[in-house]
Amino acid sequence: MAKEPKTLEDLFHDTLKDIYFAEKKILATLPKMAKAAQSDELRAAFEKHEAETKDQVRRLEQVFAAIDKKPQGKTCAAIVGITKEGAEIMKEYKSSPALDAGLLAAAQAVEHYEISRYGTLIAWAEELGFEDAASLLEETLEEEKATDEALTEIAKSAINQQAEAA
Amino acid sequence: MAKEPKTLEDLFHDTLKDIYFAEKKILATLPKMAKAAQSDELRAAFEKHEAETKDQVRRLEQVFAAIDKKPQGKTCAAIVGITKEGAEIMKEYKSSPALDAGLLAAAQAVEHYEISRYGTLIAWAEELGFEDAASLLEETLEEEKATDEALTEIAKSAINQQAEAA
Repeated sequence: MAKEPKTLEDLFHDTLKDIYFAEKKILATLPKMAKAAQSDELRAAFEKHEAETKDQVRRLEQVFAAIDKKPQGKTCAAIVGITKEGAEIMKEYKSSPALDAGLLAAAQAVEHYEISRYGTLIAWAEELGFEDAASLLEETLEEEKATDEALTEIAKSAINQQAEAA
Repeated sequence: MAKEPKTLEDLFHDTLKDIYFAEKKILATLPKMAKAAQSDELRAAFEKHEAETKDQVRRLEQVFAAIDKKPQGKTCAAIVGITKEGAEIMKEYKSSPALDAGLLAAAQAVEHYEISRYGTLIAWAEELGFEDAASLLEETLEEEKATDEALTEIAKSAINQQAEAA
């Protein structure tokens, strides 16, 4: 089979598979992070984001449908690496007063990856005239930004101070 | 040797090693991305960021000095994963009209990882009273944000349109 050069539409589809894999990986990781969190506030933030992530997975399935494709994941090396670092923090900082600070940092690295991916996908969807896809992706981008800001607020408040005082 | 529980200062130091490894990995990757870029504008952006990254590595060495530690890297699984995805794009989209769009997306994923890491390090440096470290890290954070914005501008302009038209 001769290979046609890949197009922007292919890149959009490939990146959609990448973030679909990533969201599912995040969904599997969040309960572990919630369980590990020391503060009730951080645990609640992870639980809230787990519920949102379920919606985001469903929304991605709608994006696949909007471009007439089946939902399909593709190993995302970036999220594998980012979540691996989070797992290391959970292990190395278990029972450390700095554990929550480390969990927050890991979660914010995840959020920033997603913010970058959704920003890119929206720009491409608009270029390609995929209006329904663009507005679905925009909803998720706003949620991810709000989650990142909420995590920043939690980080600014008690946790770092607790870690330092201990 | 009995293990003391790790502190926020340990977490700061560990994360500094992580981003030091990451910046060096990025420094090794940028010339490949510049070489692969199809548009002169994108190539110039990567070359400019390569020069900045050299300064950022030196600035991190000053941060290590400010906390009386030797500069030392620690494998950062996140950046390994993110740059692996960039390498896949360079391979799979070689001679595709969408190559530059893919390179831009990869570069923005890198920038967002760095923005998240530097934001975290600054918050901890402030908590720990590491004022010199905090202001050095702040300089780099501003550069990373400016790079991300510059990449967004390039993405918005010609490249996606070229990819679609081809």
